[in-house]
Amino acid sequence: MTYCCGVLVREGLVMIADTRTNAGLDDISTFRKLHNLSEPGERLISIASAGNLSITQSVVSLASEGLENPETGVVERLSDVGSMFKAAQLLGRCIRKVRDIEGAALDRMDIAFKITLLVGGQIRGDRLRLFMLYSAGNFIECTPDAPFLQIGEHKYGKPILDRAVTFDTELYDALKIGLISMDSTMRSNLGVGMPIDVLVMRRDAQLAEVDHRIDSSDAYFRDLRDRWSSALRAAHIAIPKPPYGAGAP
Amino acid sequence: MTYCCGVLVREGLVMIADTRTNAGLDDISTFRKLHNLSEPGERLISIASAGNLSITQSVVSLASEGLENPETGVVERLSDVGSMFKAAQLLGRCIRKVRDIEGAALDRMDIAFKITLLVGGQIRGDRLRLFMLYSAGNFIECTPDAPFLQIGEHKYGKPILDRAVTFDTELYDALKIGLISMDSTMRSNLGVGMPIDVLVMRRDAQLAEVDHRIDSSDAYFRDLRDRWSSALRAAHIAIPKPPYGAGAP
Repeated sequence: MTYCCGVLVREGLVMIADTRTNAGLDDISTFRKLHNLSEPGERLISIASAGNLSITQSVVSLASEGLENPETGVVERLSDVGSMFKAAQLLGRCIRKVRDIEGAALDRMDIAFKITLLVGGQIRGDRLRLFMLYSAGNFIECTPDAPFLQIGEHKYGKPILDRAVTFDTELYDALKIGLISMDSTMRSNLGVGMPIDVLVMRRDAQLAEVDHRIDSSDAYFRDLRDRWSSALRAAHIAIPKPPYGAGAP
Repeated sequence: MTYCCGVLVREGLVMIADTRTNAGLDDISTFRKLHNLSEPGERLISIASAGNLSITQSVVSLASEGLENPETGVVERLSDVGSMFKAAQLLGRCIRKVRDIEGAALDRMDIAFKITLLVGGQIRGDRLRLFMLYSAGNFIECTPDAPFLQIGEHKYGKPILDRAVTFDTELYDALKIGLISMDSTMRSNLGVGMPIDVLVMRRDAQLAEVDHRIDSSDAYFRDLRDRWSSALRAAHIAIPKPPYGAGAP
């Protein structure tokens, strides 16, 4: 399992990904799922991945090495595409290419071809953008009405994002709320686990302001978990009991 | 879609169910999913259902009308079974019977035979118990280690139950937390909706202390939603910003 979210606010973009992979409950490993391609001041592209690990890694490798664009005959790479839209298109083609290569063999083994990606970032001269790609290589873009996208085990962590994040949320508040969302998910699904990789980029900077791995010894994250648990407890205790039946005041 | 939960605490049992059904997004209706069979002081059996409505309704009807127990030749009904375990067994046999009757025709239409039930209650002389039944008619029982069970769209509402409910939670606090769980679910999944049916029974009473329908005009529930939203907002605002990168104090 996996949980990743991207939050796109006025000030910038936050990308968060866990690192747990599992082939069954008895085979758990740690793999980085947040892939950052950085050329400071020029481009910063961050890719978070969910799905079959062999597929997601192959797609990211292919997009880094380069794939010929059949319409132009030009080999395109994440390191030279001219816009985030082109980066999303390239990754979409890479998904289809990996499917062409691996799909039939996976089908024979009844292994689903499953991949979702979040692709966020900015290339100088272009806008800061965030996309979500599906297994067919098609994609949607994050907009200010719902300024976040999630992949993997998204349900446990969605309520806090729904309630707390708007396009005007400050950048480090967006990071904080994203970490609360990750905490809720880890608490309910053992398939999502530490360490957590985070990336923060400010709009129009094209560089990582934070590129950090949070492990179980991270004092801030432990404090956040404790505070959030205590606050939730206090919050439900502060609500009056239902007035129905014998609960009536 | 559906969301129902049962919370079994030391003092008693809470059952909560939404009422929204949908055949596609363009065909939404209200159906009661919480079925209570009551003989005050003698027995109170509460069944919450999720899955295909035609299947869940048929199973409840069959268990009410009666089904012959093949081992004894006796026709058993929810109104005369001698224990909650026997009630769960009867409902399991009813699920299998409805599958025998309807399954082949549903298969031909590629309609999955999907049903989950929560069955909670008490029969005089027996213990207060809560079970969850699956499509195969098998079932598990709720225990004090995790004193709640959920069916249907369970993920959005699970974090608050995980954090807030223990076996020693007071009965009306359990109801309150269950309603917060329902609120979180309704907020994130349009397939779960008002009105909400609730049942509260105290241990060893065999009668409903609350048997209530909460609709959109219910002042308490509106207040609970507002307070919970405000408290969550206050909770995340009170947590310091992450100290990573430019967020450092």
